[in-house]
Amino acid sequence: MKVTGRSYHTIWLNEDRHSVDVIDQRWLPHEFRVVTLRSVEDAAVAIRDMWVRGAPLIGVTAAYGLAFAMRADASDAALDATWSRLHKTRPTAINLRWALDEMRNRLRPLAPDARAAAAYARAGEIAAEDVALNRAIGLNGLEIIRRLAAGKKPGERVNILTHCNAGWLATVDYGTATAPIYLAMEQGVPVHVYVDETRPRNQGAHLTAWEMNNHGVPHTLIVDNAGGHLMQHGLVDMVIVGSDRTTANGDVCNKIGTYLKALAAKDNGVPFYVALPSPTIDWTVRDGVNEIPIEERDGDEVAFVQGRGADGAFARVRISPEGSPVANPAFDVTPARLVTGLITERGVAAASPNGLRALFPEHA
Amino acid sequence: MKVTGRSYHTIWLNEDRHSVDVIDQRWLPHEFRVVTLRSVEDAAVAIRDMWVRGAPLIGVTAAYGLAFAMRADASDAALDATWSRLHKTRPTAINLRWALDEMRNRLRPLAPDARAAAAYARAGEIAAEDVALNRAIGLNGLEIIRRLAAGKKPGERVNILTHCNAGWLATVDYGTATAPIYLAMEQGVPVHVYVDETRPRNQGAHLTAWEMNNHGVPHTLIVDNAGGHLMQHGLVDMVIVGSDRTTANGDVCNKIGTYLKALAAKDNGVPFYVALPSPTIDWTVRDGVNEIPIEERDGDEVAFVQGRGADGAFARVRISPEGSPVANPAFDVTPARLVTGLITERGVAAASPNGLRALFPEHA
Repeated sequence: MKVTGRSYHTIWLNEDRHSVDVIDQRWLPHEFRVVTLRSVEDAAVAIRDMWVRGAPLIGVTAAYGLAFAMRADASDAALDATWSRLHKTRPTAINLRWALDEMRNRLRPLAPDARAAAAYARAGEIAAEDVALNRAIGLNGLEIIRRLAAGKKPGERVNILTHCNAGWLATVDYGTATAPIYLAMEQGVPVHVYVDETRPRNQGAHLTAWEMNNHGVPHTLIVDNAGGHLMQHGLVDMVIVGSDRTTANGDVCNKIGTYLKALAAKDNGVPFYVALPSPTIDWTVRDGVNEIPIEERDGDEVAFVQGRGADGAFARVRISPEGSPVANPAFDVTPARLVTGLITERGVAAASPNGLRALFPEHA
Repeated sequence: MKVTGRSYHTIWLNEDRHSVDVIDQRWLPHEFRVVTLRSVEDAAVAIRDMWVRGAPLIGVTAAYGLAFAMRADASDAALDATWSRLHKTRPTAINLRWALDEMRNRLRPLAPDARAAAAYARAGEIAAEDVALNRAIGLNGLEIIRRLAAGKKPGERVNILTHCNAGWLATVDYGTATAPIYLAMEQGVPVHVYVDETRPRNQGAHLTAWEMNNHGVPHTLIVDNAGGHLMQHGLVDMVIVGSDRTTANGDVCNKIGTYLKALAAKDNGVPFYVALPSPTIDWTVRDGVNEIPIEERDGDEVAFVQGRGADGAFARVRISPEGSPVANPAFDVTPARLVTGLITERGVAAASPNGLRALFPEHA
């Protein structure tokens, strides 16, 4: 997607054919910085400290991390150690595990001296597959937007609410929740996006609004509290969010607060869609609320807010009293009964065991 | 309630018998500052710029504002002009209008030279009535907490979630939503409070957490997105919020995001209570969603966050991209069907026309 008029991916192999560049997303929306990753440690820090985030982008970054390791030491021991090192950076991210398993399964049968080249090749493929996957998700979601647009008067836009950042910054390109939106733009279907700021880390304000702003998508930033009110007043035609992990029953684990938007959508008859690449489906889990452990993150993410100060420098301000305890669950689970449909690369599935099995019979 | 061990009200008449002191709440939770109001303009600025906020405290501040005016000019023209000047500071606040009407109705029949003394007397009564009202609300709400406590195992606390600040800082003392909590503390019923930070102005993080912290109430600060997840996991026994305006049908207009918590409470079988003094009931309005105009506030409240910087000074940081439009509706309406009960000074009413009429037959 476009940044100041030029098209970018979020991660790309450099001309040296072994280091990769990524957008260091910690400085967005205020500064656009690109950094080079060269080692497993670089990749691990980039994932753990959220220079890169979003299930698909984390997966690709980890895949390249494994490739970096293979250049230095392509032994089985190094392969396993690197798998573990990278896996523990974001243990909740199912796609991280998927990418690491995919890489290890591909490399394990090979002679050590063939592993580095194969690792780079496979990492590059995973990146390319992600772009293709997201484009397919986008085309499937675009049909839903087109149907809503057909019910509008001339000049009216389809109003879409999204939570967190399941945008192109969370993937290699297009994004998941945003892919239908970018394709609607491409094809001249008028859309407008309400962007939840997404406390505590403000990925909506920092990233989604920045994406929309740079790519020229009409949008409005709102606090997480506002979506219910907008839906009550008919200002939202559909919700599209991403998913960190979707269960075989169609329960959706996504950024904290997603569940509240799903409840509001249900209460107001607003369709609630989840866009997800099928590798983020966890076929081993059924009841998301009771089975998915929710990552509890550092309370300082709530107690402090980061942004750009009056002097232009980055600053962190404390908003809570010293001594007030903080809880910071990072995700919640939206039960399948609140989900209108799961937009996957193969089509839109009903959020149910049968709906998912129909599209993915190989997991039946 | 207590601040560093000493009991305070939020507003009090000084020994000079004409100026009043208020807690300038803009500096909380980081600094406890008391300022003196002497003129209508002082009172208007204090209300408009939210040095004081909360329906009851705004009402008392406006009442004293009218008293200030009567000292300078006690004519009918001054009475009407001051009513208008103060009313426009927060046009959505039903209690502001109630207090101003109450004062004008009391003063109008009097000779001008009797008005100033009568105004101070009535303002003082309104303040005292607020404390008595909130204590009555607290006792009625306390019965609900006691019933929940009776179902707990020894050592378990009643977990209460609240949104925004309907605390003692929003009133003269006790608060509305917090009155049952403070009385539970007083009477040894073990409670723990989840405090929504309440974006965009963070009244939960700035004020409610500060109140709890100073008064020694066990509490945990959370982002507004987290409440649904906590309720799904049985961590919340009841919700108590305040109300800026309640309709004759029992619809509740309160801080933006209240509606989302009510939906989550309903979905999880958690009782959802609204604590309110009856002057905030607007008997002229029935359908809150369709009839109550919602104040749209400055988008900078969303785009910027205020707090204390690393150097200890107050700072404002921008969290959104320049150029991203912002919408900032300040309130939403929770339909009566989602409300378990309205805790008033006369008792707990069902959120329905009949429920309210039964407690307030004079409005039937």
